[in-house]
Parts: sequence; C-alpha cells; structure tokens
Amino acid sequence: MRARDVGLSCGSLPVGEGNNIADVPGVTVGHATLIEGDIRTGVTAILPHDGDLFPGKVVAAAYVLNGFGKSTGLVQLNELGVLETPIMLTNTFSVGTCANALIRRAIVSNPEIGRETATVNPVVLECNDGYLNDIQAMAVTEAHADTAIEAALEDFAVGSVGAGTGMSCFGLKGGIGTASRLLCFDKQPYHLGVLVLANFGRAGDLRLPDGRRVDPKSSPASEAGSCIIVIGTDVPLDHRQLGRIARRAGVGLAWCGSFWGNGSGDIALAFSTAHRVPHNADRDLIDQRVLAETRIDRLFQAAAEATQEAVLDALTAAGTMVGRNGHRRTGLAELL
Amino acid sequence: MRARDVGLSCGSLPVGEGNNIADVPGVTVGHATLIEGDIRTGVTAILPHDGDLFPGKVVAAAYVLNGFGKSTGLVQLNELGVLETPIMLTNTFSVGTCANALIRRAIVSNPEIGRETATVNPVVLECNDGYLNDIQAMAVTEAHADTAIEAALEDFAVGSVGAGTGMSCFGLKGGIGTASRLLCFDKQPYHLGVLVLANFGRAGDLRLPDGRRVDPKSSPASEAGSCIIVIGTDVPLDHRQLGRIARRAGVGLAWCGSFWGNGSGDIALAFSTAHRVPHNADRDLIDQRVLAETRIDRLFQAAAEATQEAVLDALTAAGTMVGRNGHRRTGLAELL
Amino acid sequence: MRARDVGLSCGSLPVGEGNNIADVPGVTVGHATLIEGDIRTGVTAILPHDGDLFPGKVVAAAYVLNGFGKSTGLVQLNELGVLETPIMLTNTFSVGTCANALIRRAIVSNPEIGRETATVNPVVLECNDGYLNDIQAMAVTEAHADTAIEAALEDFAVGSVGAGTGMSCFGLKGGIGTASRLLCFDKQPYHLGVLVLANFGRAGDLRLPDGRRVDPKSSPASEAGSCIIVIGTDVPLDHRQLGRIARRAGVGLAWCGSFWGNGSGDIALAFSTAHRVPHNADRDLIDQRVLAETRIDRLFQAAAEATQEAVLDALTAAGTMVGRNGHRRTGLAELL
Amino acid sequence: MRARDVGLSCGSLPVGEGNNIADVPGVTVGHATLIEGDIRTGVTAILPHDGDLFPGKVVAAAYVLNGFGKSTGLVQLNELGVLETPIMLTNTFSVGTCANALIRRAIVSNPEIGRETATVNPVVLECNDGYLNDIQAMAVTEAHADTAIEAALEDFAVGSVGAGTGMSCFGLKGGIGTASRLLCFDKQPYHLGVLVLANFGRAGDLRLPDGRRVDPKSSPASEAGSCIIVIGTDVPLDHRQLGRIARRAGVGLAWCGSFWGNGSGDIALAFSTAHRVPHNADRDLIDQRVLAETRIDRLFQAAAEATQEAVLDALTAAGTMVGRNGHRRTGLAELL
Repeated sequence: MRARDVGLSCGSLPVGEGNNIADVPGVTVGHATLIEGDIRTGVTAILPHDGDLFPGKVVAAAYVLNGFGKSTGLVQLNELGVLETPIMLTNTFSVGTCANALIRRAIVSNPEIGRETATVNPVVLECNDGYLNDIQAMAVTEAHADTAIEAALEDFAVGSVGAGTGMSCFGLKGGIGTASRLLCFDKQPYHLGVLVLANFGRAGDLRLPDGRRVDPKSSPASEAGSCIIVIGTDVPLDHRQLGRIARRAGVGLAWCGSFWGNGSGDIALAFSTAHRVPHNADRDLIDQRVLAETRIDRLFQAAAEATQEAVLDALTAAGTMVGRNGHRRTGLAELL
Repeated sequence: MRARDVGLSCGSLPVGEGNNIADVPGVTVGHATLIEGDIRTGVTAILPHDGDLFPGKVVAAAYVLNGFGKSTGLVQLNELGVLETPIMLTNTFSVGTCANALIRRAIVSNPEIGRETATVNPVVLECNDGYLNDIQAMAVTEAHADTAIEAALEDFAVGSVGAGTGMSCFGLKGGIGTASRLLCFDKQPYHLGVLVLANFGRAGDLRLPDGRRVDPKSSPASEAGSCIIVIGTDVPLDHRQLGRIARRAGVGLAWCGSFWGNGSGDIALAFSTAHRVPHNADRDLIDQRVLAETRIDRLFQAAAEATQEAVLDALTAAGTMVGRNGHRRTGLAELL
Repeated sequence: MRARDVGLSCGSLPVGEGNNIADVPGVTVGHATLIEGDIRTGVTAILPHDGDLFPGKVVAAAYVLNGFGKSTGLVQLNELGVLETPIMLTNTFSVGTCANALIRRAIVSNPEIGRETATVNPVVLECNDGYLNDIQAMAVTEAHADTAIEAALEDFAVGSVGAGTGMSCFGLKGGIGTASRLLCFDKQPYHLGVLVLANFGRAGDLRLPDGRRVDPKSSPASEAGSCIIVIGTDVPLDHRQLGRIARRAGVGLAWCGSFWGNGSGDIALAFSTAHRVPHNADRDLIDQRVLAETRIDRLFQAAAEATQEAVLDALTAAGTMVGRNGHRRTGLAELL
Repeated sequence: MRARDVGLSCGSLPVGEGNNIADVPGVTVGHATLIEGDIRTGVTAILPHDGDLFPGKVVAAAYVLNGFGKSTGLVQLNELGVLETPIMLTNTFSVGTCANALIRRAIVSNPEIGRETATVNPVVLECNDGYLNDIQAMAVTEAHADTAIEAALEDFAVGSVGAGTGMSCFGLKGGIGTASRLLCFDKQPYHLGVLVLANFGRAGDLRLPDGRRVDPKSSPASEAGSCIIVIGTDVPLDHRQLGRIARRAGVGLAWCGSFWGNGSGDIALAFSTAHRVPHNADRDLIDQRVLAETRIDRLFQAAAEATQEAVLDALTAAGTMVGRNGHRRTGLAELL
C-alpha cells in the first residue's frame, strides 16, 4: 500500500510512472531485511546506474539539515562533487560494516584501488532504529550489504523493509518511502525521484497534506530520530545545483510537521545520472551540460513535494510492528 | 491589526506579552517610511540593547537559507560570532547607504575606530521591493537610516512600515511582522522574538495554519522575493547554538507554503542579549553561560513557530497598497 | 619596479607574458588614486571581460580564509556561482559607496534591473588602510569608482595605486601586486593570473622565497590588516573547482610568512572567463566545459605561487609613503 | 630521534616540556603497529582525558582543508561541537573497523547507548598507506583498535608507529609526529599540542625551516596522500574558536612546502580539555569560560608552528622502510 492509495498525495507537479525513485532511468533499489528475536533492522542500497560506479561516477552533493548523524563519505563527496559507490542506508551502528562491504566490492571490480590509483569513498547513511531493534547487537554483516546491492531492482518494496525495518516516525512505524515527479526541459521529459529512510518526528507533530494532525497517543516521544533523503534525477546539473536541490528536502520534512529536532540527523544527498564522470579522463577538458539556473525552481518544488510524499509513503506502507522488549509502533494506515 | 486578531495563531508554545521581538528585554525597533510619488520603501532598525553595540557586542549568528541576496556584514558576523551595530533592514539598493550611516554613527560614538582600533562591521539585510517601489531611484538616504535608529521603541508598528513599506509576499502585500514565544529554563522565564521582512513566496502558495490556501488570483508571479528573519532571545547561547536556531527560520517559511524559491534571498540572523562581549576585554578569559544542548529543541520550535506567525503578522498588518506604475498588492485581511 | 626585477620570483611554473592578471585574455584593471592631505586611499576595478557582465556573467567562487572583513556580494556569488559586476577593491569604509556605483552603472546599461528582472549583486572587497589614510573621512565617492572602471586597461600600474594607495603589509608599504602563470591543457595554452590588495602580516613575519626574513624594525605591529586575492583564469572550470582554487590563495599568504591573523580579513575570489553565463538563457539546458578533476593540481600550484609572488610584487612596487599624522611605511625595495 | 635533535625547530613560541601533545594535561596517545609480510599499517588513539568521553565530552571542532578523505564522525562533531570518543587514526580502509570498536567500547561503559539514550558518534580519521602497505588486505581488526586505546600513555612513540607505520610524506618515510607550545593567559600557563599523521606532499616539495629543499630523487610522485592534524589544548575555547584554530593547521602544512594537493585529504581536528560537557546536564544553563577573541592570535601562531614542527618530527623519527612489493621510503634523517 502506497501513500496515494490512502489519499495522501502532495503538491501539484505530475507524478512519474511508478511514483518512485526508479522512475529515473537506470536507478535501482535493493533491500536486506533482518527480523529475528530482538533484531529489526537491515540495509537498503540505491544504485544510480547499472554499471560500476568507480570508473563511471555520477555528479552528487550532500546537504546536512541537522548534523546529529553518523553518516560516512560526505566530506569527499562534497569536495569532489561525485559519488563513486552505491548509496547504502542502514542503522547507526552498521555504517562501518556497510562501508567495509563497499570497499571490498570496489576492490574486486577495480583491483588497482589503493595500489595504482586512489582509494574509494564509500557512502553510507544511517538512522537509529534502537527503539524497535536491538541496535547494540550490531547484527548487520557485510554479507547483508552485499545482498542488498545484489537484490537491486527497479521494482522494489517500501515500508518496513531493508534499512527501514525497525524505524519509527512521528511516534508511528516508519521505514522506506518513495515518490517521484515528472519534469520537462527543452521539450524533453526528465524525472526527479526521492527515497527516504524515515525515522524522525515527535509523536503528535505529523501533519497530513490536508492539515489534519495525527497523534499516536500511547507512543513515547522519540528522543533520537533522523531522516535520510536520497534524491535522484536525470536532469543535467552540476554539484552546486544538486546541493541547492538537496537543501529543499528540508522543506518536505517541514511540510510533514517537523522542525528538524536537535536529535535528528537529517541529511539529504542528491545525484544526477546525466553524466558519467570518468575516474581516468582521457582528455583534460570535458564537455558537460547543466541547467540554466533560472529554471531550477521546478526542481526545488519537485524535491520538496516528493520528499513530503515519500515520508507519507513510508508511514503508509509500514505496518504495525512489535520489536525489542515488546516495543510497538503502529502503522499509519491502521490509524487512518 | 495583528495575525492573532484575525485568528492566525501558530503552534503550541506560550506567547510573550506583546507577541513581538521587543518582548526580549532591551530590544527595540524603529522605522523610517518613504511614501511619495513612485517611492514605497524605507528602513527598519533593530537594536538588541539600549547601549552602544561597538563596546558592548552581542553574540550572534547568521544562516543563509537561500543566498540570492545582497546583505552585508555576514562574513565577519559568522567568523567572530558577534554583532557590533544595530541590524538594519532596507531595500536591495539601499544596503550601501545604510551601511555608510552605521559606520558614521559608530565613529561618532567611538572615535578610535579605524585609527587606534579595528574598523566596524555594519550589518544590513535587504529585500527587493521593486514591484511597488521605484527601487532604481535609490531614495533612501543616510538620514533615513539615522531616523529609523533614533525612532526605536519597544512599542513599534508592523505591516507596511519601514523596510516593509513596499514589500510583496505570496502575491499579496507583505511587510514587517513579528511574534514571540515564552520559554522557561532553570525555572526562570526567557523569551524568543522574531521580526521578519516578508517579501517572498509565489502567489497561490500561501498556506494558513488551518491548511487553507490563499490565492490572490490577479497578482503576477513574484520573480524576485526574499525574506529576512531576525531572531532575538535572552537565553544564553553561543554562536554555534544561535546558528542552529537561525536555521529553523526555514521551517517557519516552509510552514507558510514556501519552498525557498531560487530568486528569494532568505537569510536568518539570530542574536542573544544574555552577554555583552567587550571590544576590549580586561582579562584574557571570560566567563559566560550557555544552554545545555539537550534543551535546545524548545528554541528550535519557538523559532519555527514565531517565524511562521511573524510572516502571517506581516501579511495581516499590511493593508492594500498601490505603488509604482499603479502596481497593486492586496492586503490579506481584505481577502479573509 | 616589479618583484622579479629585484630577484623575488616564486615557484617553478612558467610565467605569463606580462606576469600579471591581464595575461588572462580579456581581463583589464583600472585605478582611481586619492592622495591629498591625510587621504591615502583609492579604488581598483578588475573587469573579467570587455562586455557588460550583467547579461554575460562569468562563473566565480569566493573563499573566506579569515572572515574579519566587510566585503559585500559574496553570499549571492557563492549561491549562484556567478559574478555579474566588475570586482571593486577599496578601503573598508568605502564598500557601500562603491556598491552604489556598481548598481547605478548596471541600471544604466540594463534598465530592466529591479523592474522586469532581478536586482544586481555588486561585489566589493576591502582592506583597512587606516594607518596611513584618514579612513574616517570616507573620501571615496561614486565618481572615483566610475573612474577606476573607466580607466581599466591590460597594462596597469601596481604598488601604491588605487585601493593599494594607503595599504601596509608586514610593517612595510603594501598595495596592489600581480603575477601570472602559464598552463597547458589538451595542448592549448591557458593562463591563471592573480591580483592582490596586500595589507596583512605582522612586522617581522615576512619571509622571502630564499628564506630570508625582513624586519622593518621601527614600524608598529599592524592591528588590523587584510589581504584580498583575486584569481582570474581562462581554464574552463565550474564553481566548485574555482572554490577549491581560491582556497589555495591561503597557501601563498602562508608562504609569505603569514598565519592568517585574527584581525586580517583574508578573502579570495576566483573567476573563469571560459564561458559567459547568460542572464536570460534561451534554452533550459546549457553546454559547458570543465576541467577533469585529476588535472587540478596544476591550478592549485599556480594559484599558490602566483599569490605569493603577487604579494611580493605589491611590496616591491610600493615605495615608501608618509600619510596621516606623519605615519610612515617603508618600501621593501629600500630595505633590500 | 625528534625533529629538534637534528636541528629542525620551527617558529618562536616557547615549547612545552615534552614538546608533544601530551604536554596538554590529561592527554595520552597509544599505538598498535602491524608489520608482517606486506602489511605496514596500524592504529593510533588520542585520548583527551583519562575518563569516559561519552559522559564527559570535550568541546571540539573539525576543519576540512582538502576533503579528498574518508574520515568519519565529523558531521556530528561540527553540529554539536563536542567529541565523545577517543580520536582514532588509521589507514583509509580501516575506518569502519575502528569505528565499530569505538561503538562497542562505548556500549560496554554506557549500556544505555542506543536504548535509553542517543547513539554514540565514533571519530576516526585516516590516510592512505597503500604505497608501503597492502591496504587491500584490510588487516586492522577491532582488537588492534582496542590495543591502541589501552596502550595510551603520556610518553608515546613517534615515527613509523601506529597509524604512521606505512605512511609516506614528500616522497620520504612519513608517520606520526608531534610538537607543543607553551602559552600564558591571565598569568596562568596553558598548552597547545599537535599530533600529525603525515602522509602528504610531492617528492621535492619539502621545505625545511631554513629554506632548504629536500628531494628524495628516486621516489615516485605520491598520487594520493593526506595529512591528519589533531590539536589539543587546555585553553578554554568554544567550538567556533576551535574551528578557527584548526584552520591554521593549513598554514603549518604550507610552511612545509605543501599546496594542499588535490589527492590529499587534509583534515584538522581541535579540542579543548578545559571543560567536560555532560551527556546529561543537571541544569539547563551551564557556566563556561572562553578566550577573549583578541587574544586568539597566540593560539593561531602556536597551531601553525606546532603543525609544521610535528610534520618535521614525523619525518625525522621515521626511519627508512621497505614494504609491499619491495617499495621503499627513505627516512629524512638518513638524507640530512
């Protein structure tokens, strides 16, 4: 069940075919889900294209809305303006393990890494699922990370899957959500898609698009949340423009009722699939295409709308779950 | 007429006595308003305390939500973490003139400036009122800046006054608005107040707190807006904390329906009156007080709520105005 | 007299034809110099190309090494990644006046500014010449700013001219200096040029390229300096890359012996003339060229070397000057 | 053998008793060194005080000089302004493993982490030792990280130990180096100490304090270096001030001859031991002490001088080493 199935649509821009991040041609998403005993966690992988990202990097930018978070890889991503591994999402204490898996995979495909050429920059983003999950168990292994990457498809699940398995959002069950918007530049169709790992917001603060508030009552206040927002697009953009678009994810979170709380590591990462940036360029100067800046408002609006809807999508798709110590999060659909 | 007079209240925190930025003890606001021929512009001054700010600076931080703006003084303010002049608001093409006025005033009070001691850093923020105002006339003089500072009072006007005279907001008449929230730390009362110069938002995007949309219909889309948000508080905070609070002004703008458009120079500046930072310290090490970080959510919420309400306050207080070339902006109160 | 005339050359890269910023094709520089009574100040204008910059912007980035400075225009320059006026250098208290002049000139050429289109973002950078100059007199007028722009030539003076007239550097006479480096990409020649307004450094800290220290002895410690570094190039680069290059100006200052003192507003601005970014694009998507990132070290080295040499050039070209209150700064050439 | 033993002293400020980072009271350093087969790597731990850092955090700031690096933990460190684990240094591909070790140790001491309270933010910084070390082997284990922490002492080794085991610098053998400076504020003694993991610089670019260049000739150009600079002090400072001081590490690297090359992940982290910031404050408002800003130049100079000397210390202490594939790096002492 998706957000639009229960009447939760956001904004005014036209929606992509699948209303998901895979509407951006080439993007795929895979999950590894761990549910056993007190474990409610997992890994989600987003692949910008079906090739190897190390030799064929994509232009990217990250924006930290609120930095109470432990993501890795953002320093280099913002210095060089490119992404050179799949994007991994997981729980806070599994960042290191997923990073190790990304390094090992990159070495297998590119044995010159760390020898004849530079090292590789793994990008892993995270939220704290400790309310439902025994996060101290550090249950995610490198094999789970591999599984998520190898499972990547255009047609992927949302809700309590992958990294979203144990997440909470506005005192309800959170998880993975997605949405997309259709754009048009120079008479050609383009796409912007969003995937969120939604684990933020105080109980009672959720605001639906029609203005209704949703209060799960019994749920305790979330002390330490987070929201990771991944934005993909096939519009040609440079790093600076992607950074401006990533910032608008904050609008989408605000439209859901959040004020980006102190304990919430809210981080957005945007990438464009329009170019592949070679690891070893065969010329000094490279031709590329960018958007005329005065047209960027459509992308800002698309990013804000799709982020808002992706959060509602996560809430809608995630069913009620009982986890560690009998902790319980109710699914939004049950309350509506 | 204020926002609450027409039922537009925001959020859940208690409101300060005057529901304005002067609820923060010591803060005063003054205006100089220019209406003549095609001129619809002015100057607004915010004084953090009633003393000279050069010898008695206040801790401050600025945050650029969207940098399509021409404000001056923010580089030094963020490097040194202090404000050493009144804050001036005006139209885009009067920044230099207001800065000159601030410099001359500081020299009069502190004749050692630029001779025996460092220079002074004037802080002037701006929006483009060119739809209603003949901004090319550059009508503001240094005398107008002086007038605004000298007129500063705790009891000040809102709406189409001072820098707000010619502003537009969501295709309606914009201007100056304000709001405040009451806080409590260690059982003592504290205050956070916001003053906005509201000149942003596309016609039709305005969202009232109850979810209603307001569309002025006939008004053309605003190409180049902006919103300046000044946040004052008497809570003891350091520069980093004030920067985090300033960022939450973006939540307030989003709650009004904005996605921080490309052409909007949205900039927030936050200051704390809790300490006076001496220009010439008589000791090397200075004692000061800061907030325990885990208590900062109350200030985030207060900043977001008060920003949202201050924008609605500007819209409510500003009556319909006809300006340059017969351009017209309708007041929100007329539509409600 | 230039730095190389007294044996002060820096680094190993080949030097451009004139060893100045005008080696970058299209770049010109003009000065207005004010020497009268206690006045020792002026204005310097750098024009990236001979056309109107508002319709034909250039890609640019600014980097704040130490933000104890009052420059204006950097917020928008870094958000949008373009420069749309000439770059003006002047004393700290003349920033507003030069900004006003830039606005008026842009309106004359583009009467739609602030009416049918957005406003214009004037870029003015500054140092404090208050030791030799009566900076409180605020002697620079808009006419002086116009004069500097209209005087711009490829063949321009250095030393105690324009904005450099009253500047001090390492306790010696500072001013305007310049240098350039020749580059080669894809077998084509390219250029990187630097112009500095040198007004920084404590007496005794100056380090010549051969390791010698120069101590002017009698000069008092400079309390409040600054160095503005303008870097121009015809290499095709995007905003992010220009920001990385601008940062290397800090290396050049360090190589001169500076540690970027607290009171020094050290700011670098880099622009590329390779593209003209239209104010009104006639297509949504624009083709442009950028440098392959792995080739950027040559530009880093060129920026560092040319900045170091431009500072030494300012020191060499500036003769001994007596100014306000009989204050005196000795020229480096006199000491060598 | 230390830098001063071979005549390599830097700057003019007085040196601390041990001329190392442990001159800052409470700071200790430990190493785990791995030399076996093609493995030349390790882990270095810096402990700001002898207590548990999670309940007793220290104020800290990080500054990215050049972000071609894969360090983790800096996002949260800069948002909240505190450090809550030991600082770990290691090779690029062991960041995840060291982070996991820090998490497990924090959980053991604070079992409420990720359950009743927030998660913990591990801080791990890295350089690429792939020239001498088989970095693809990912030989560092969590046990090695534990060993380094448990080995921490005031009296610690420098050179080719711990994380420095396999590092290269200016085409020579790099490694761990340290230096300190003595300061005085309000007539009390204070300290600033630096520890570097030196792995940067092109062969031939090394500049000794007397101006001499050192060229190892036969060594190939370093493609992918990095330098991590850790600055500790007992001077009371806030996050903003520590960030300004961290930036001056770049001056020290420049004084060694570097221009912060594209492939070098140069990152500085500064902390102050003057306060312990409680995880759970028992009051809302906390008293603390900061430095009057006008006194900060002494710390800037100390940071620049001690960084330069710490790099020379690493070069001096590290003897010639042969590693992976017979790759060889000569020790500086051998050349002098």
